[in-house]
Amino acid sequence: MGSIERIKNVARRVAKWRAAGHQIVVVPSAMSGETNRLIGLARELQEQPDPRELDMIAATGEQVSVGLLAMALKAIGVDARSYAGWQVPVRTDSSYTKARISSIDDQRIRADLDAGRVVIVAGFQGVDDAGNITTLGRGGSDTSAVAVAAALNAAECLIYTDVDGVYTTDPRVVPEARRLSVISFEEMLEMASLGSKVLQIRSVEFAGKYRVPTRVLSSLTDPLIALDEEMKSGTLITFEEDEKMESAVVSGIAFSRDEAKITVLAVPDKPGIAYSILGPVAAANIDVDMIVQNQSVAGTTDFSFTVHRNEFQKALDVLNGQVLPAVGGREVVADNKVCKVSIVGIGMRSHVGVASLMFKTLSEEGINIQMISTSEIKTSVIVDDKYMELAVRALHKAFGLDQAA
Amino acid sequence: MGSIERIKNVARRVAKWRAAGHQIVVVPSAMSGETNRLIGLARELQEQPDPRELDMIAATGEQVSVGLLAMALKAIGVDARSYAGWQVPVRTDSSYTKARISSIDDQRIRADLDAGRVVIVAGFQGVDDAGNITTLGRGGSDTSAVAVAAALNAAECLIYTDVDGVYTTDPRVVPEARRLSVISFEEMLEMASLGSKVLQIRSVEFAGKYRVPTRVLSSLTDPLIALDEEMKSGTLITFEEDEKMESAVVSGIAFSRDEAKITVLAVPDKPGIAYSILGPVAAANIDVDMIVQNQSVAGTTDFSFTVHRNEFQKALDVLNGQVLPAVGGREVVADNKVCKVSIVGIGMRSHVGVASLMFKTLSEEGINIQMISTSEIKTSVIVDDKYMELAVRALHKAFGLDQAA
Repeated sequence: MGSIERIKNVARRVAKWRAAGHQIVVVPSAMSGETNRLIGLARELQEQPDPRELDMIAATGEQVSVGLLAMALKAIGVDARSYAGWQVPVRTDSSYTKARISSIDDQRIRADLDAGRVVIVAGFQGVDDAGNITTLGRGGSDTSAVAVAAALNAAECLIYTDVDGVYTTDPRVVPEARRLSVISFEEMLEMASLGSKVLQIRSVEFAGKYRVPTRVLSSLTDPLIALDEEMKSGTLITFEEDEKMESAVVSGIAFSRDEAKITVLAVPDKPGIAYSILGPVAAANIDVDMIVQNQSVAGTTDFSFTVHRNEFQKALDVLNGQVLPAVGGREVVADNKVCKVSIVGIGMRSHVGVASLMFKTLSEEGINIQMISTSEIKTSVIVDDKYMELAVRALHKAFGLDQAA
Repeated sequence: MGSIERIKNVARRVAKWRAAGHQIVVVPSAMSGETNRLIGLARELQEQPDPRELDMIAATGEQVSVGLLAMALKAIGVDARSYAGWQVPVRTDSSYTKARISSIDDQRIRADLDAGRVVIVAGFQGVDDAGNITTLGRGGSDTSAVAVAAALNAAECLIYTDVDGVYTTDPRVVPEARRLSVISFEEMLEMASLGSKVLQIRSVEFAGKYRVPTRVLSSLTDPLIALDEEMKSGTLITFEEDEKMESAVVSGIAFSRDEAKITVLAVPDKPGIAYSILGPVAAANIDVDMIVQNQSVAGTTDFSFTVHRNEFQKALDVLNGQVLPAVGGREVVADNKVCKVSIVGIGMRSHVGVASLMFKTLSEEGINIQMISTSEIKTSVIVDDKYMELAVRALHKAFGLDQAA
């Protein structure tokens, strides 16, 4: 939620849904800029703010939102009641700043719904078993919303965001990108993990785990737009694979520039080498994404992996400082000017030649592929990041995504 | 607490007390301006914000403060842990925006103190039996501090504020005003209720109820000042009446310009008339302060009382709209250009002629007294508010308050 005016618009939209006979639970995020303001205050006191205390502070952003939204609803005659995470309670583990929801008690929420109230639950936050306030990390409000929907067995979870749905790719890169009216959960999961910023991956995982039908809608439309028109917009994340979906081989192109590639050259090719290299990296709390180990040549192999660009230098330090002396490779070569481009589609399961078309398309554009990683429904490549937009546009066209479905 | 710099100063001061071997619980207020900012947001949505939701929002100000102070302490090597009111818990009744503390659980606090931590408890807030967040109203942080001190049976409650103690009167009105090093609890209670803004009256009541030795100190001194020097500053509110205190007949002059006087002329002088007049006023949630009923003349009497100037118009509406038609008085006359000036002193108990000296002093200055109200240790008068400063200065001198004790 942004300004007071946006809070009023949320209230109008909620009132519209309620007037249509629905029971509504709303999970607002903090007002825009608020979370950053709070973290900024913390950083003025501690370079690495204490995680428990940071959560104590950060959780207040959503607590303010829920109270304000309740007021906005009451101001237009809709009875409403707000709850902080601990009041529901939304129980989490104790991993401050990135806690995971373990359970949500639906008793208070149901009692209020039955009493005819709109219930407003603070997103992004919970409480651990010892009664400490926790937060779920960035994008946690989406996860909270899906988790509350799951706990209540809701008919649908509507996620209002600043885009109006999931696109075949980012329209800022490919103007011909089309909005998908439906996407499968598995595809959405890949899109989220591959750099599409529509939904936080953890909220998609949650939707999948509890099979919550989730719809991405725009928060920027007129809040008083007719309900059926509102439902026709956006993208529904579904768990049923219908024919229409299978007809599309590839649903979308995802990409991310937050990549860096690291290769340890000529390490001894023996059992346990992967762990010897990646163990210290994981111990330094660095997430590794793609991993490729090349064919052994003369008893040594080249071992490559990618990390988030922000953790590039940290990873290099670990490799040069700890790994290389221990495993005895020749040297570490690295490149933080790479990007990841991925094609995603549930249809890849039953169609052959999808990856080939991707490689052919990139080849025809003269784009060298540095690493490849595949799963059942996606193929990702690492290429020089100067080719990113070109690669995305070429693939979008090659897979016919610019054609109406 | 004001800015980040002030939070750092609080941390330095706390560290100093702890280094001297004390166990410390800190009850910070919100950062300056924060509570007003939050209430402002609420008012943009509802002219009369829903009290439950207002407390939900307002309580976040102190929640941010406690987290930030914990970080500031950790940053200088002092282990600390913060708690929101509900985490302690600080239990209150359900009177949103003006809740009263019913109990404070000392278990978590004591466990942390025993573990060598500084404990930081959010002031101004609590939780009711149903788990709703409540706030204590303006100045509630002082009350929280005293209540926590009482629950822990603390050696002393130190209230750091933007003045360095309790003065014989407001130094802005009388430059000769002197700081009192000691004041009795009863005198402090009268001073607080009569307009001295050093401490909120409810915090003084709490200190009295649980006999918590409470010291008012300046938050603006150098935080690293020597401890014994710091203790020599400020004012101690004590429960022991020593000789020195009895020697002073009057300890201070309090005053308030927030007054308005209302008189109902020629009401029938019959039993129940006071209730007929003040009942509807109380029902409209208007606090009445002084009440005077004059001698009956020919079966009618004039009935006067004072209200807070902010509630003047509301009170007039009640009287003209409801009371006058019902009780049949002649008319309502009113004046919101009055002030209250009071002398306060525990020595008044055992000294005669104190009120007379007050009346004589005002008479010599040509100040007409409109209403008089007395208690065991104070005498208050209502006078035209243009005489306020003159009355305070004359009384300050007449009772020898400008002389060193």
